[in-house]
Amino acid sequence: MSAEVIHGGTITSPQGFIAGATYAGIKSKGDNLLDLGILCSEVPCIAAGVFTTNKIRAAPVLLCQRNLKGSQAQAIVVNSGCANACTGQQGMAGAEQMTALTARNLGLLPEEVLVASTGVIGKQLPMQKIRDGIESIVLSPEGGHTLAKAIITTDTLPKEIAVKVNLGQNEGEIIIGGIAKGAGMIHPDMATLLCFLTTDAAVSPAFLKKALQRAVDASFNMITVDGDTSPNDSAIILANGLAANKVLKEGSSRAKEFEEALTEVCLFLAKSIARDGEGATKLIQITVEGALTIAQARSGARIVAGSPLVKSAVHGSDPNWGRIIAALGRSGVDMEETKVDLYLDSLCLMKEGRPLPFDQARARSILDRAGVPIRICLNLGDASATAWGCDLSEEYVTINSEYTT
Amino acid sequence: MSAEVIHGGTITSPQGFIAGATYAGIKSKGDNLLDLGILCSEVPCIAAGVFTTNKIRAAPVLLCQRNLKGSQAQAIVVNSGCANACTGQQGMAGAEQMTALTARNLGLLPEEVLVASTGVIGKQLPMQKIRDGIESIVLSPEGGHTLAKAIITTDTLPKEIAVKVNLGQNEGEIIIGGIAKGAGMIHPDMATLLCFLTTDAAVSPAFLKKALQRAVDASFNMITVDGDTSPNDSAIILANGLAANKVLKEGSSRAKEFEEALTEVCLFLAKSIARDGEGATKLIQITVEGALTIAQARSGARIVAGSPLVKSAVHGSDPNWGRIIAALGRSGVDMEETKVDLYLDSLCLMKEGRPLPFDQARARSILDRAGVPIRICLNLGDASATAWGCDLSEEYVTINSEYTT
Repeated sequence: MSAEVIHGGTITSPQGFIAGATYAGIKSKGDNLLDLGILCSEVPCIAAGVFTTNKIRAAPVLLCQRNLKGSQAQAIVVNSGCANACTGQQGMAGAEQMTALTARNLGLLPEEVLVASTGVIGKQLPMQKIRDGIESIVLSPEGGHTLAKAIITTDTLPKEIAVKVNLGQNEGEIIIGGIAKGAGMIHPDMATLLCFLTTDAAVSPAFLKKALQRAVDASFNMITVDGDTSPNDSAIILANGLAANKVLKEGSSRAKEFEEALTEVCLFLAKSIARDGEGATKLIQITVEGALTIAQARSGARIVAGSPLVKSAVHGSDPNWGRIIAALGRSGVDMEETKVDLYLDSLCLMKEGRPLPFDQARARSILDRAGVPIRICLNLGDASATAWGCDLSEEYVTINSEYTT
Repeated sequence: MSAEVIHGGTITSPQGFIAGATYAGIKSKGDNLLDLGILCSEVPCIAAGVFTTNKIRAAPVLLCQRNLKGSQAQAIVVNSGCANACTGQQGMAGAEQMTALTARNLGLLPEEVLVASTGVIGKQLPMQKIRDGIESIVLSPEGGHTLAKAIITTDTLPKEIAVKVNLGQNEGEIIIGGIAKGAGMIHPDMATLLCFLTTDAAVSPAFLKKALQRAVDASFNMITVDGDTSPNDSAIILANGLAANKVLKEGSSRAKEFEEALTEVCLFLAKSIARDGEGATKLIQITVEGALTIAQARSGARIVAGSPLVKSAVHGSDPNWGRIIAALGRSGVDMEETKVDLYLDSLCLMKEGRPLPFDQARARSILDRAGVPIRICLNLGDASATAWGCDLSEEYVTINSEYTT
């Protein structure tokens, strides 16, 4: 039994979730841009989060970590256009006000509200605009689409999905929804991303925490756009239990199905982020097989996916495969040159460390695809892993050389 | 007593070194490009080398490491346009032929000749062209300039320097010369670079090896262009002793003067490489002060210098300083946000973790300079380090998306 994607699904597809967003004026460029939104559940939720590994943590991250200690929450308020990072005590006061204002409007306690911000670092939040904005947000069961738009910055498209899972006899169906933003500062160990997930499943707090961490490890921690991470990276899940299934706990087959579906949701969102990397035109998929350990396979795949030289070559559809091997060579992964095979899709470019003559036109046609699969077989062990990245284009530089101005 | 730069100096400035180069036809684009060269000493030299840390090592690197076991050499043959990496047994046979042909022409043994290659990975050397090329090279005491041109690939300028050091009474003067190439695949722990150094000083093998490693650590291992390293990175020094000074050994004050001058030569070449990074328009200097350990200061400075977001912001003269702090935050360096100060030249942007209002026009004018100094004070300890990098421009992508085609 696997998860079924809901056509037009989003974060408010699971029962009992409502959302909405507004343009508060935090983003300075253009107008009619959404930049402030709220997600709310009708009932209290079990909640879990995974946050940035950056030593600089934004005020909203610190506040979420505090509010999540009891593994409960009922709403999330989020803004784009200002990261509220490197903002000192004033920044923390701003984050606290965001949760307090949201809580008051929704009839909740401030500690039941989580908060996230994304945008420019080192700028204080425009609190008056945020106050007015929060007042004006209208929540609805269709509001997930609007919220997905409100959290993006340099993304070209909102990222949203929902899936349903039939847990079998007497248990019925549960739904998992999610939205995410990414584009730049994207790297393993929590990229510059915000990801919000909801489910109407009843889930134990301990299992939810573990399942989220594992789903994030297999998805958001396997994508890279530029090797940078941010002080704001957050993935948060709210589970409101309205599906009334028997509470899912670690170890059961139903919990496994739930986790598989959650991972599928995260993978969809993660790949959407990589594909929509700043200036990207292609999704690059790097699989490392035959590594000695999973950790090595993961690390190798991520380093190749992050290599600026590999990314540039893929951008120009240049079959300059030596760069792939050179990037793997600096990854620290155990390898023996005379055992390594390299494939571009099914086209073998290197066999046991020796370059093969290959059809340049065919190589180019694979590199011209919207999705470019690269596979490296180390032939040393049984471990494998896949990472996703994007090509590096002139547009990436243009976007990032004019970001704050 | 410090080193004095010799106007117009190069690798053949020290006594007894001759060099030359030719266009053998290895580089495929354009014509009249030099791509094959030889450096030779009149007498046998003490020799040392530092090589790539990449697990994929090119055939010439493996051969140099073998030939350097006795710490002696008398000549170096080098080609650009083909890296002779990922080329299996045929590649090793090619590297061996290069040393054998050069040795025969110079009246040396093959194991007295070192070899280096740079260019496209995964392509076999065109041996007939190389054979003909080696035959045609004319060596002269002025040939260092030609050799400096023959080793470059995407560099826009050759990099060369020579300095003289007066070792004091009865000891006279010694000269150190050097040339280097870089531009892409540049990162700490030996970037894609070739560096050849010569001196007429008499130096003990043990001291020469240590002094070279330390000079490389302070220079080539502190520059980054794109985070990639290559299978070919090599820094080699030949010391022919013709200055007839008392042999320099670890621990003496004269040895210290020699090492300082050697480090100065390496720093000049390393900064030239960073400044001439592919597509670069500016040299970025990152100093991390007040770290707990030197290793942390070095790592932090290098990671900030390598951040694509920092590099893009500097390219556009965008004072988006949050990216500097975010990059340091992911470096693993111990830091406390509330203690960190950040300076753009002498302009303070952040004090004890709080953003300061600053003069945007002044910040832009600093970022517009050809050299952009950024200083981060962690205020935790006494260790400091400086790294160099370059801005990331659209041109970097253009160069690297069309490299082999």
